[in-house]
Amino acid sequence: MEAINASIGFDKRMARQDIDGSRAHAAMLAQQGIITNKDAEAIREGLLTVLSEIEGGTFEYSAALEDIHMNVESRLKEIIGEPAGRLHTGRSRNDQVATDFKLWVRDQFDAAISGLDALISALLDQAEAGAGMVMPGFTHLQVAQPVTWGHHMMAYVEMFARDKSRMADARARMNESPLGAAALAGTSFPIDRHATAQALGFDRPSANSLDAVSDRDFALEFLSAASICATHLSRFAEELVIWSSAQFRFVVLSDRFSTGSSIMPQKKNPDAAELIRAKVGRINGSLIGLLTVMKGLPLAYSKDMQEDKEQVFDAADSLMLALAAMTGMVADMRPNAESLEVAAASGFSTATDLADWLVRALGMPFRDAHHVTGALVKMAEDRGCDLPDLSLEDMQSVHGEITQDVFGVLGVQNSVASRVSYGGTAPAQVREQIATWRERIK
Amino acid sequence: MEAINASIGFDKRMARQDIDGSRAHAAMLAQQGIITNKDAEAIREGLLTVLSEIEGGTFEYSAALEDIHMNVESRLKEIIGEPAGRLHTGRSRNDQVATDFKLWVRDQFDAAISGLDALISALLDQAEAGAGMVMPGFTHLQVAQPVTWGHHMMAYVEMFARDKSRMADARARMNESPLGAAALAGTSFPIDRHATAQALGFDRPSANSLDAVSDRDFALEFLSAASICATHLSRFAEELVIWSSAQFRFVVLSDRFSTGSSIMPQKKNPDAAELIRAKVGRINGSLIGLLTVMKGLPLAYSKDMQEDKEQVFDAADSLMLALAAMTGMVADMRPNAESLEVAAASGFSTATDLADWLVRALGMPFRDAHHVTGALVKMAEDRGCDLPDLSLEDMQSVHGEITQDVFGVLGVQNSVASRVSYGGTAPAQVREQIATWRERIK
Amino acid sequence: MEAINASIGFDKRMARQDIDGSRAHAAMLAQQGIITNKDAEAIREGLLTVLSEIEGGTFEYSAALEDIHMNVESRLKEIIGEPAGRLHTGRSRNDQVATDFKLWVRDQFDAAISGLDALISALLDQAEAGAGMVMPGFTHLQVAQPVTWGHHMMAYVEMFARDKSRMADARARMNESPLGAAALAGTSFPIDRHATAQALGFDRPSANSLDAVSDRDFALEFLSAASICATHLSRFAEELVIWSSAQFRFVVLSDRFSTGSSIMPQKKNPDAAELIRAKVGRINGSLIGLLTVMKGLPLAYSKDMQEDKEQVFDAADSLMLALAAMTGMVADMRPNAESLEVAAASGFSTATDLADWLVRALGMPFRDAHHVTGALVKMAEDRGCDLPDLSLEDMQSVHGEITQDVFGVLGVQNSVASRVSYGGTAPAQVREQIATWRERIK
Amino acid sequence: MEAINASIGFDKRMARQDIDGSRAHAAMLAQQGIITNKDAEAIREGLLTVLSEIEGGTFEYSAALEDIHMNVESRLKEIIGEPAGRLHTGRSRNDQVATDFKLWVRDQFDAAISGLDALISALLDQAEAGAGMVMPGFTHLQVAQPVTWGHHMMAYVEMFARDKSRMADARARMNESPLGAAALAGTSFPIDRHATAQALGFDRPSANSLDAVSDRDFALEFLSAASICATHLSRFAEELVIWSSAQFRFVVLSDRFSTGSSIMPQKKNPDAAELIRAKVGRINGSLIGLLTVMKGLPLAYSKDMQEDKEQVFDAADSLMLALAAMTGMVADMRPNAESLEVAAASGFSTATDLADWLVRALGMPFRDAHHVTGALVKMAEDRGCDLPDLSLEDMQSVHGEITQDVFGVLGVQNSVASRVSYGGTAPAQVREQIATWRERIK
Repeated sequence: MEAINASIGFDKRMARQDIDGSRAHAAMLAQQGIITNKDAEAIREGLLTVLSEIEGGTFEYSAALEDIHMNVESRLKEIIGEPAGRLHTGRSRNDQVATDFKLWVRDQFDAAISGLDALISALLDQAEAGAGMVMPGFTHLQVAQPVTWGHHMMAYVEMFARDKSRMADARARMNESPLGAAALAGTSFPIDRHATAQALGFDRPSANSLDAVSDRDFALEFLSAASICATHLSRFAEELVIWSSAQFRFVVLSDRFSTGSSIMPQKKNPDAAELIRAKVGRINGSLIGLLTVMKGLPLAYSKDMQEDKEQVFDAADSLMLALAAMTGMVADMRPNAESLEVAAASGFSTATDLADWLVRALGMPFRDAHHVTGALVKMAEDRGCDLPDLSLEDMQSVHGEITQDVFGVLGVQNSVASRVSYGGTAPAQVREQIATWRERIK
Repeated sequence: MEAINASIGFDKRMARQDIDGSRAHAAMLAQQGIITNKDAEAIREGLLTVLSEIEGGTFEYSAALEDIHMNVESRLKEIIGEPAGRLHTGRSRNDQVATDFKLWVRDQFDAAISGLDALISALLDQAEAGAGMVMPGFTHLQVAQPVTWGHHMMAYVEMFARDKSRMADARARMNESPLGAAALAGTSFPIDRHATAQALGFDRPSANSLDAVSDRDFALEFLSAASICATHLSRFAEELVIWSSAQFRFVVLSDRFSTGSSIMPQKKNPDAAELIRAKVGRINGSLIGLLTVMKGLPLAYSKDMQEDKEQVFDAADSLMLALAAMTGMVADMRPNAESLEVAAASGFSTATDLADWLVRALGMPFRDAHHVTGALVKMAEDRGCDLPDLSLEDMQSVHGEITQDVFGVLGVQNSVASRVSYGGTAPAQVREQIATWRERIK
Repeated sequence: MEAINASIGFDKRMARQDIDGSRAHAAMLAQQGIITNKDAEAIREGLLTVLSEIEGGTFEYSAALEDIHMNVESRLKEIIGEPAGRLHTGRSRNDQVATDFKLWVRDQFDAAISGLDALISALLDQAEAGAGMVMPGFTHLQVAQPVTWGHHMMAYVEMFARDKSRMADARARMNESPLGAAALAGTSFPIDRHATAQALGFDRPSANSLDAVSDRDFALEFLSAASICATHLSRFAEELVIWSSAQFRFVVLSDRFSTGSSIMPQKKNPDAAELIRAKVGRINGSLIGLLTVMKGLPLAYSKDMQEDKEQVFDAADSLMLALAAMTGMVADMRPNAESLEVAAASGFSTATDLADWLVRALGMPFRDAHHVTGALVKMAEDRGCDLPDLSLEDMQSVHGEITQDVFGVLGVQNSVASRVSYGGTAPAQVREQIATWRERIK
Repeated sequence: MEAINASIGFDKRMARQDIDGSRAHAAMLAQQGIITNKDAEAIREGLLTVLSEIEGGTFEYSAALEDIHMNVESRLKEIIGEPAGRLHTGRSRNDQVATDFKLWVRDQFDAAISGLDALISALLDQAEAGAGMVMPGFTHLQVAQPVTWGHHMMAYVEMFARDKSRMADARARMNESPLGAAALAGTSFPIDRHATAQALGFDRPSANSLDAVSDRDFALEFLSAASICATHLSRFAEELVIWSSAQFRFVVLSDRFSTGSSIMPQKKNPDAAELIRAKVGRINGSLIGLLTVMKGLPLAYSKDMQEDKEQVFDAADSLMLALAAMTGMVADMRPNAESLEVAAASGFSTATDLADWLVRALGMPFRDAHHVTGALVKMAEDRGCDLPDLSLEDMQSVHGEITQDVFGVLGVQNSVASRVSYGGTAPAQVREQIATWRERIK
């Protein structure tokens, strides 16, 4: 039973939060005259001693005491004696656990937001350096249209910025204090929940005591935000794995984030990228794990909910690690401008530019322009050349109204420069986006 | 191949969104001088005709035309001829699909918010009617402390209000228009993305064309918000199933939301509650389904992403159905006040009140008060009576300082009335919460 | 990078398997004349020394050496010098890891099968003691028909026996040795893979070296079998939580598997049952975690696959713990025969027996018999009595052909005794099932 | 309520199974003298009429009748009158639904096994044609060692053969008949469950009537087997997407399984491969969906279980579609032998062969051989040449004992030919595997 019941093995990670909560509670109890100032002072001093023992590594955890809350309280009693018994007035294990865990998760939202800022910064640096560097834009992993390296980096800035925004919204929503909800019904002691809420940095106390102890939305919302963020990371990681293959050679990863082999010293295995790609599995697993635990649980508290912490601890660790590794990898990686441009020009990637020119310059309906372009691509393919290598006569043999001007849109540099619509890949557009984001994350 | 490739079987649900998007695009093309006003007018009229055919049920879908976009465009061409070919200028299937799907999902956020408002309203009515009705507060499905029916209902109001807030945040985050991102790189046509964004009710155009076509965050975020909301519904549904058992008899469901049996006409099977409880499985499945699809997808578009729609369609239908059924069930159900009160008084549920009194009135440390209370509960249990049935002498035999005043906290009505801390179960507190929420959702 | 790359933190759990694999490999290398007997002997002795250091707790793990394989090899080199360098001949890290992990997972299949046997044994004891004890059979948590306690226990025997069978099938399927597949292509050394397979208890070497190093089916299959088993456990745990509520009082859990409260010493919170119920979330999470990791991984080896172990380790630990706790809880629990029988008789639970009698004795069509029964139930309900309390005249007023014989089927004891169809709830049937299963798991 | 309750919208897919079950039941009832032969004959004829109406498309389904069972029974009554009312004797909706659904799922196991056989056949053809065709073996998507195309294909044969074996085991385990379990307790009618089991192709009746109606293991096991199979398909699909990129050019997909673009007619988007890759998301979602539904459900039947069917229907459809599409794609695809061989020779892919030669021919310890090889690879890299291009003198400058014989292991053809260990990539080994599998699936 102890094996399945005790949580001290993992919930000791919330020691600091537990002590913060107890300090706020004790101060409020004194303020309200529920305990004496002397007792409150003894509790405060005692808790600081416990905290320093824990941070100093000298604290002895006991599995028999089950969880971090009992471990702290028991040690406090050893240190200060009777007043320790008054600390628990007007609260219960249920609101205490909820408070500790909320404080811990709130820290993770903050850590994730910082991690995302660092990653976005690294991406902005890459984007700026390669704002004009041409690379292929892919659909179905086939070259579709030329884009710029900067534009591609900025796509990830958008994704990670949405992750930040999602984390920030969730943090704001969860920032209500459960402390004082007691076991589930509130208490008859004249406590001041607004005071403890404020002391712990919450925006307000939660408005319903049953909900306060039974709610784990904040954990679920952290996990779902983490899953979406990890999905973004996995997409970028997949690209880095493909891009660093011998067949693509789009990017060179640094030795810090790849591994060699004693037998093939030239090799750079993208291990870090692969591990980042894999983390999404683990985080999705934690999300589904906690969703499953919470399914169909009656109010207000069931022991099932003890399974909440390890899921969130593991997912938070995985996410922070993946963010840090990706940030380092992005900062270090070097795009191979030459390979990128050669690839960008392959596969008749400016066919769309040609079609658009036919529409714009000759007023052809869109579908007809497609047809003419298809015929010209076919001609180039048969001759083993690219579109700009066809002569004007060749072109006019397919459609008589084509003029010399068409060559102005056919190179990859011309192509990207022309995509000036808002959010488009033109270097000017990309540089504007970079400037905007630099400003935003300052 | 057609079997695996065609999406018309499901994406026809986005017909209206597709036509809305096309109308906005055509109007903008004319405004910018990219197509003539005459063509724009023909397109507008033609699209309205197509829409009326679809809404009238006379439209003939073709699987050979693969998807709703091609079906609409092909019919438009039949109706208006050549100008139909100009509609696709400056956009592509990729941004068109993203736009249509976003519009559809945005409608679901709105529908979910309305559905949640209706459910909250029904809960407020129940809470008001039972603001002073005593019932057991459970932990581990064991009676812990008395609470009120109104308080329990208000716990769900908090949960569903968080769901609303989550939906509203997600809706705001996703409200950027992909239209004009074209295939992935933007376009060289002088389009006005701000104009189409505004016409379609978006807050702004998305800032990166690659991201605009490859992003499915909005679908993932709808699914994760739906999963959390469905988790809340499953918790309530579980309670209703347990509460309507012959052993609990806490609530009577209406015939509209239960089924009988020809052989046992007295029976009321809580089928609707069970089906609501089950829906969370399906919605979690859709969430994990789309997260898995998006894992490791390189930019900008892969056909895998076609799997996004059915997951969201199914989850949205399930959520709306579950919300509507729960709202009806809540509106109709009748709490059994007598059973609730009897249950509330069982299991020495006012033991905490006694302990709190010992602390408050006699200044005992919390842990000592627990000890004395435990002894009194033991005594009552041995005698087969409840705590208020013990005499003052009995009590004093355990702790000499106990006075007559103690009986003032022992009944369940006294107990709930005393929990006046903010968010506590006291009827006055509950009524304040109700008033606050009535104001908020007006 | 070390933080994300090193696996020694968790893969040290495979130390014994790693050493077993190396010993088998070294012995084979000597047998085949690839290394000398003297080197093989040194390796064998050295590995035993390492193993005893590990088991004795004196081994010093190094994160710089990344994983358990390098830690062992490095220590071996310190102990025996140069011959350590020959151990790796004809194998690679890839087949070594696959072998170690397979050996570890195989042990878990065996442990799960043992754990299931113990649980089935405990259930058989409960079934035997209560083979004739009447309890309600529920549908929709409403009383439907009387069954016996033994019958209910035996339903779980069937479920857990299927779990055993599933584990056994999976164990047989995975029992092929990857050792000798080398990096991915096999080797040019004249190794004997059949010899190492046999030495390690495998049925045969795997037949394709690429598959041998890239396959993680055995882990996925363990996880899916564990998820289904945990689902069964969660269903039983839910029943125990409900059954031990004050409203049901069907079962009393022992103090070993419930927790009290200092303040309410009479309380028995079913903590263990709740924790067991919750474990399915975690195990499902691990399953979806690894399925997600393996999605879309190209052959033969990617670092993503390093994420396989922690998912399986955690799920295996959770499953074994849940099985052991459930076995203890089942062994200790006491059914409350009186409450069970009272509940079984409630809700006109013998209505089906009455209807069946009408069909059997009077030759009525089934649907008509339902109609007559419904009318009689209604009559009893209106009078506030049970079916056997109606007089023959009452019954004949609804259907004239009913005779005195009808009372022979109406009590709950009569009801269960009559369900003698194969697999039915009649005590005689249940005792036959028990005898069969006793024989099977002997 | 009807919207959430009715299942006829999807369970009509089980019409044939429902009628098969009813026919077997009616025949048994007559055999046992429970109904007359005349009634049984009328029922048999009537059911065949209903079946022909359903198969002919003339049957009119009614949502008011909720499910397929009531729809069939109601129509039967219209056709044959009173005897229809006797069909339900000795059975209930619960065992009827379980029987129908088991029959349906059993058909899916059979269909999946057939589909896997077809895919394995197509792979064997590819393997045979390319048994000697050299291609790169990848780790981390980096070239590691040369393997053969046939060897790579055979790796998938192993995977899909395990899928077959998993499906076959699950089919055997689930092949027990629930029919006659009645509502949950069995019946007092003298039915013969062995007879109906045999008539429906089951191996035996299920041994516990509660379990018979509450068990959905067969559905969960189908879904988990489908998820693992879909994972294999996703891995192969990912390879095909990468291999058909312009950068790899390893394979050419047929037009049947790729899509072009009117504007770039040379393009072959691997749409089918991408859709197959995505299907694993959907199937995993169904698995987690049903696992979540079944979590914590008390016995014997809850309406939640009605959510089982759509999950399995959708997953089965997706799996069959993906298997068929993959089979067609494999049959049609053409490996590009030249690209494959060039890639196989890149990246010093025979470095391992060189190291193995040093160990084998010169008796060097493995780790030393790695060191020497690393130095030679470095030398070749610096010179911009491959290993076989180094002279003997070059080699001897690194290690003096190297002889001319070393060149015998350095080409990719030599390399693959030398990997003759069991299961290795040598063409002879691969051909043996092919022959073995041809025999097995005959």
